[in-house]
Amino acid sequence: MFRRDDRTTSNHHHHQHQDHDKQVSKSAIDSCEQSPGVTFTVPEKLQIARELSRMGVDVCEAGFPVSSEGDFDAVSRIAKEVGPLMEGREAIGKPMRIAGLSRAVQSDILRTYEAVKHAPLHRIHIFLATSDIHLTHKLRISREECVKRACEAVRYARTLCDNIEFSPEDAGRTDRAFLVHVLGEVIKAGATTLNVPDTVGICTPEEYGGMFRELIEKTPGADTVTWSAHCQNDLGLATANTLSAIQNGVRQAEVTINGIGERAGNTSLEEVIMAIHTHPNETFPVYHQINTKSIYKISQLVLQTSGMAIQPHKAIVGANAFAHESGIHQDGVLKHPSTYEIIDPAEVGVPSNAIVLGKSSGRNALRAKLAELGIQLSGDDALQRLFARFKALADKKTKVTDHDLVALAEDQLV
Amino acid sequence: MFRRDDRTTSNHHHHQHQDHDKQVSKSAIDSCEQSPGVTFTVPEKLQIARELSRMGVDVCEAGFPVSSEGDFDAVSRIAKEVGPLMEGREAIGKPMRIAGLSRAVQSDILRTYEAVKHAPLHRIHIFLATSDIHLTHKLRISREECVKRACEAVRYARTLCDNIEFSPEDAGRTDRAFLVHVLGEVIKAGATTLNVPDTVGICTPEEYGGMFRELIEKTPGADTVTWSAHCQNDLGLATANTLSAIQNGVRQAEVTINGIGERAGNTSLEEVIMAIHTHPNETFPVYHQINTKSIYKISQLVLQTSGMAIQPHKAIVGANAFAHESGIHQDGVLKHPSTYEIIDPAEVGVPSNAIVLGKSSGRNALRAKLAELGIQLSGDDALQRLFARFKALADKKTKVTDHDLVALAEDQLV
Repeated sequence: MFRRDDRTTSNHHHHQHQDHDKQVSKSAIDSCEQSPGVTFTVPEKLQIARELSRMGVDVCEAGFPVSSEGDFDAVSRIAKEVGPLMEGREAIGKPMRIAGLSRAVQSDILRTYEAVKHAPLHRIHIFLATSDIHLTHKLRISREECVKRACEAVRYARTLCDNIEFSPEDAGRTDRAFLVHVLGEVIKAGATTLNVPDTVGICTPEEYGGMFRELIEKTPGADTVTWSAHCQNDLGLATANTLSAIQNGVRQAEVTINGIGERAGNTSLEEVIMAIHTHPNETFPVYHQINTKSIYKISQLVLQTSGMAIQPHKAIVGANAFAHESGIHQDGVLKHPSTYEIIDPAEVGVPSNAIVLGKSSGRNALRAKLAELGIQLSGDDALQRLFARFKALADKKTKVTDHDLVALAEDQLV
Repeated sequence: MFRRDDRTTSNHHHHQHQDHDKQVSKSAIDSCEQSPGVTFTVPEKLQIARELSRMGVDVCEAGFPVSSEGDFDAVSRIAKEVGPLMEGREAIGKPMRIAGLSRAVQSDILRTYEAVKHAPLHRIHIFLATSDIHLTHKLRISREECVKRACEAVRYARTLCDNIEFSPEDAGRTDRAFLVHVLGEVIKAGATTLNVPDTVGICTPEEYGGMFRELIEKTPGADTVTWSAHCQNDLGLATANTLSAIQNGVRQAEVTINGIGERAGNTSLEEVIMAIHTHPNETFPVYHQINTKSIYKISQLVLQTSGMAIQPHKAIVGANAFAHESGIHQDGVLKHPSTYEIIDPAEVGVPSNAIVLGKSSGRNALRAKLAELGIQLSGDDALQRLFARFKALADKKTKVTDHDLVALAEDQLV
């Protein structure tokens, strides 16, 4: 459906890139499984990683190996067991890259490498805050020291591994000229992906996209690396910010399933993918290899293993995301789904509520189904009228769903 | 905090506007209480309307009177009981306007008027689809018939009431030139607010804001009406779209508490208000009169009365919205809250988790509290170290919260 991005195909990727990364305009998905208030068991992390690989995710950030023995083991096992090209992923043509998060400290970096190295494609992701507020109040170091630490970390990591992501934490509030300077230096030091997060979720889409436009224009060596977006949803803008970044040159979107993450969470994989999917190539000049039909299944897996609820009105994966409640909407959907639906639920793997009712079903089956759905009609007359309309619909459709029936009943009630 | 919008203060509002609406750059909030799968009782609707009035909402769309006797009664009672300037709203200086939704049909309009007329400030909100897909598949009428019905409806409504909102349903997919034509005609017919919804939630912020820029530029009489945004969240873009509309001349944002609404819901009041609140006037050139400290209370009221869950990572009002889980984040927040917090929870009325622990508390109190919070330390040594840090913190803060304690403990564990 999506052709390649004209702009990025004209880029010439240099020495720092592996062949795989020269595949431009990929929207690599870094699906953080780390999540607040949530502890996945190692088998759960493995199961999620396997599903991410099957659905076509490019990069999986499997954990923060230095944070605990358990996380080190989980990342190591994911690298060993999910890292090789898996059954179910053949269509993608290459394995999922396994990344580990690391502070800009040699011992952290080495530990991260020891965990991710088992995967054929691996990555060390180093982060260091660059905003004055973080340098002053949290790290208590100068800007010069910040640049020095970042470059030393990246140079050291490159002695271990040739795929290094660097994130200037709180970039959204970092002095722009200093940010350009830091990023130019870490490119020289060997970073291959630059991820510029809006750590506190304060940016508007215009600001976040504009930041990438400026960074890519001004940073020396910008065309030799992959630019990446990482957004927090504190103001409900994470998806819009990520999409704006993509429109301004970003080719890796860091996202999570169901949008879980610190505080108000991170950008949702499902929202970004379906926004790209429902828009023409001119709007989002990228392609992705995600199998959208896996979205609902992995959403449910993360819901159940994390215990992090998703609200009924969560976009794409919420219980109501495809539910039409008003009679007017139902009427429209029954006449022509595209009146109110921009996504066919089947496209994201939402199971259809097919019911046994069909052309041959009788009044009793209908009455039973209505009771099951909690629909009360005013009497036999009303049932008779509904039955006639149900039959007419069953004549046109191979299966009559619960949604159809609710729509018919409510239409009649109104 | 926010000065008036330079652009709109230069507008000259003409005959169609009441004095109240000449107050420009207001971000009128139309808080739809209607919600899918949700039935509010009349007392619940009254309670929510009262809280909306107290918090400073400009316009409350109280219901769809023709849809049922119950809704007619609810809207009538809200108009009678919440319509007059209420205790607790004195600072706003005028009552909340009560609106009712209506199809473009004379009998609907009259019925709506009969419900809202009891409020000192009232409004009839008429909607009619204008996109070809809706005209062809749902309404089965021509474009000419559409314009005729819209204008007749607005003209008739103006014989009853001088504050009329018109919404071209599915405007996001309506042919642009035709949309300009319809809107120009309904302005001539007497509409005072033009609400241009993205009914299916397909627009990007750029598209939605760009649409208003174009409509306001091209529609004859555009400067005599208030423009309004109404977004659906099917792709997670509702808040960004509403904010983009505000940046492009919209002065009424139609929103709901907790973002509830059809399918993936509507724009969240709390996200739009706090986005405006956390940005400089240059970014969003508007002011509002919402008391942000009421946000948490009304969110909880709508949660409890609607039964529509909000996920822990819902922006602003979710249980985790201000929870810092990682040791690094906690460390930063303890050193300086603004490292990871752009909103002080107290600003949106989130109750602080103040605990009895303070300077005079002893080891046992600390041990009990840790047990309550589910924090396990490795032994007496660890407790001793934590106690020392707790005392140091208690020296600096008047109260030590659960969050503080969790942060201290986890910092020590890492």
